[in-house]
Amino acid sequence: MELLKERILLDGIKIGTEIVKVDSFLNHQIDTKLLEQIAVEFKRRFQHLQVDKILTIEASGIAIACITSLCFSNAPVIFARKVASATMTDAYYGAQVRSFTKKTCSVVKVSKRFINKGDRILIIDDFLAHGEAASGLCEIVEQAGASVAGIGIVIEKRFQGGGARIREKGYLLHSLAVIEKITDGEIIFA
Amino acid sequence: MELLKERILLDGIKIGTEIVKVDSFLNHQIDTKLLEQIAVEFKRRFQHLQVDKILTIEASGIAIACITSLCFSNAPVIFARKVASATMTDAYYGAQVRSFTKKTCSVVKVSKRFINKGDRILIIDDFLAHGEAASGLCEIVEQAGASVAGIGIVIEKRFQGGGARIREKGYLLHSLAVIEKITDGEIIFA
Repeated sequence: MELLKERILLDGIKIGTEIVKVDSFLNHQIDTKLLEQIAVEFKRRFQHLQVDKILTIEASGIAIACITSLCFSNAPVIFARKVASATMTDAYYGAQVRSFTKKTCSVVKVSKRFINKGDRILIIDDFLAHGEAASGLCEIVEQAGASVAGIGIVIEKRFQGGGARIREKGYLLHSLAVIEKITDGEIIFA
Repeated sequence: MELLKERILLDGIKIGTEIVKVDSFLNHQIDTKLLEQIAVEFKRRFQHLQVDKILTIEASGIAIACITSLCFSNAPVIFARKVASATMTDAYYGAQVRSFTKKTCSVVKVSKRFINKGDRILIIDDFLAHGEAASGLCEIVEQAGASVAGIGIVIEKRFQGGGARIREKGYLLHSLAVIEKITDGEIIFA
């Protein structure tokens, strides 16, 4: 998606050779006009699939998943929780996920009431690095007896290997911008 | 907002006399069709105001703020972070906030790059109980030399007093559903 790559080059901030910070438009301040275009692109790529629900993970995934839902006939969005709230009193599906940027390990949780056997689930997230979050979400979908229709990622950092591992498992994964390499001088797309 | 109150009565789950769980449509599974109607209602109530940016707090506020942004000419959404990520390396405004449902206390943070002096900010959140989150967000706006255009809340629990405290300070606060009391048998709206 050219517009997204241009935006990453314009406003992305490199931190070392592993992180590109996109907090001015994607995951702290959010440009909802860009998200509308991202949603249209996800729709174009996944329109041939049946999508009953959209699953993401808090916090940054929520914005993208909700605007994407508007292009998928308002399919319900479910976000996996990293921290259980006092109102999360019922049974849940859980998967262990390590966060690359936060250097934490947590069990992400989805209430059993919201994913049903046979549901076709589109997984949406902002970043794919080592693939921990996406794999955890796939695990949750399968625990529920549902199936992963596809995985839509805004920015994949290919050099961290998560995308390859997920594609090897047979999942349909589309990333709208794939970063091959981050060097001192530049961000190189695949 | 009648549609919202009906939905709370239909799908809200009471936990004791202080909590109503709306995780099937607002803050775990999200009904984006309802959010579109909530956004239209916020627009109706705040349309006379200049709104440069929309400020919310992770996680549940993000969905509401983003869909609301679509009714405010795609005003940028900023969400305050409860947990700093590895990419949050620059200076930030911070305010201490106690979470009623999670029983935690944390400093919520917004990067100084995203709120500018003079900005007119609309604050959006899912719940107003004791008013801790909303007050913290107001504090952040004022630290930045910006001003609070208004505060839009989906569900206010009036009996917990946060709304009164915030209105006393002179802020324009609109809540789309105001709960007067939760009893064993029912949810009573104001």
